[in-house]
Amino acid sequence: MSGPEPFARVALIGLGLINSSLARVLRQKTPATEIVGCARSQATLDTSASLGFVDRVTLDAAEAVAGCDLVVLGSPVGTFAGLAAQIGPHLAPGAILTDVGSVKGAVFRALAPHVPAGVHLIPGHPVAGTEHSGPEAGFAEMFEGRWCILTPPQDADPEAVERIAALWRMAGMTVELMDAEHHDAVLAITSHLPHLIAYNIVGTVTDLEEETRQEVFKYAAAGFRDFTRIAASDPVMWRDIFLNNRGAVLEMLGRFTEDLTALQRAIRRGDGAYLEALFTRTRAIRRGVIDARQA
Amino acid sequence: MSGPEPFARVALIGLGLINSSLARVLRQKTPATEIVGCARSQATLDTSASLGFVDRVTLDAAEAVAGCDLVVLGSPVGTFAGLAAQIGPHLAPGAILTDVGSVKGAVFRALAPHVPAGVHLIPGHPVAGTEHSGPEAGFAEMFEGRWCILTPPQDADPEAVERIAALWRMAGMTVELMDAEHHDAVLAITSHLPHLIAYNIVGTVTDLEEETRQEVFKYAAAGFRDFTRIAASDPVMWRDIFLNNRGAVLEMLGRFTEDLTALQRAIRRGDGAYLEALFTRTRAIRRGVIDARQA
Repeated sequence: MSGPEPFARVALIGLGLINSSLARVLRQKTPATEIVGCARSQATLDTSASLGFVDRVTLDAAEAVAGCDLVVLGSPVGTFAGLAAQIGPHLAPGAILTDVGSVKGAVFRALAPHVPAGVHLIPGHPVAGTEHSGPEAGFAEMFEGRWCILTPPQDADPEAVERIAALWRMAGMTVELMDAEHHDAVLAITSHLPHLIAYNIVGTVTDLEEETRQEVFKYAAAGFRDFTRIAASDPVMWRDIFLNNRGAVLEMLGRFTEDLTALQRAIRRGDGAYLEALFTRTRAIRRGVIDARQA
Repeated sequence: MSGPEPFARVALIGLGLINSSLARVLRQKTPATEIVGCARSQATLDTSASLGFVDRVTLDAAEAVAGCDLVVLGSPVGTFAGLAAQIGPHLAPGAILTDVGSVKGAVFRALAPHVPAGVHLIPGHPVAGTEHSGPEAGFAEMFEGRWCILTPPQDADPEAVERIAALWRMAGMTVELMDAEHHDAVLAITSHLPHLIAYNIVGTVTDLEEETRQEVFKYAAAGFRDFTRIAASDPVMWRDIFLNNRGAVLEMLGRFTEDLTALQRAIRRGDGAYLEALFTRTRAIRRGVIDARQA
């Protein structure tokens, strides 16, 4: 397992689920790495410091990145353009700037203009997580057995790409390279649309009158509860994902709605053959997910 | 735990997930109860016999119910009217006829005309299950900590109701009485609509071209996989649920679609405040499910 040299000093901007999990990995695997934590609230910094996965904390992103050979943006992607403008002038020559955001086209467009020559921009997306958020929610094992997608620009330095790939492999992930647009299309299907639908169905239920709502909780095990878990994910993070992958999400939502209309029509008309054929096809898909060891 | 007398002879019509789990409960808790298994296929009967949770098996439902003090219908609800016509004349005086179907209004309408005087019709719905089906999938613990809803007609014999309630309590469930229409409305929200949406989103994905589909499996952990589990449920059972709770399902689907249209509009217009407010509300709902111990 002798890979590239470990990073000497890493700035983690945003100390939520992903970055705090990454910090725990670094603590375990490369204990010599100095970890600088940066967040917008003092409370988050205090929690992170007391959990012991950062060496230094600061509210000032520009200060955080000074002298770092790696900077990882882990805040909601809507903050990236502002952050990049702030930290750009302070990034050390030869440093790598990466992120853990769930959209990649918009991230590149937000960051690239602010990255000085000699700094390597290697956007990334570790596809892992839970419905919990914040520095307390992180754990080192979260990445194990999952996929990490990197979307380096075409002219990216191969050595810088390999260092980021090695970082995520160290965390237990399998790394794939992809162009940003393809990433956004695939994640719109596998992640963004499912979250959108879960948020929507849970929202529909919250609008029901109070009495029914209590019964909804009681009988949630009949199906509804699976949606409540997804729909408990971080609201600001997800707001930014939808706003920053609008095209692909609306495209997938359009297909979903067409299919739903056809299904509604089949139910209204009592077309049992249509329903059974669909449900038989979808059952086979579960097999595919299990075979891909992602169940 | 001294409840009503155990049943002497029970006919289980349909030997899928629920009835085969109930059989296992009966084996454990009232081993003197004779269990007669009935299914449409010899293969299911053979499997059930070899698993040892039935004393006798038969393909003939009329033969199965003869001399039984309890008959439990556990096949897809679309089969109930035909089964009732077949078994009605053979039901023993004083016997209880119940079922485990996920809709209750249509079930009562299908069964009631065929139930002779002196036989107690007590429809029921143990709200428990997994995405697996068939006699191999059952297990005695499946009902523990879950709710069972009984929807006895207004003139039902209280003693018969209590015997069915005691049966499900013996399996570890908490029993609630409800009228059939209310059951169907509540389950349309908590179960039928979530399944419909899951089937639909998984269907949308299966229609994508093969290459993307492989990537969908790979990155399913990002959200999609939660839907594939639900959408792997038994196709015929679910076909019949939708066909037999059409009104309530279409009503809930109408609300869902209205809300989805509003959400789509917010994304297209970049209305971040709308998204964040919705996602914050839905996060709180998860708390309600956890507090109801159904997470």
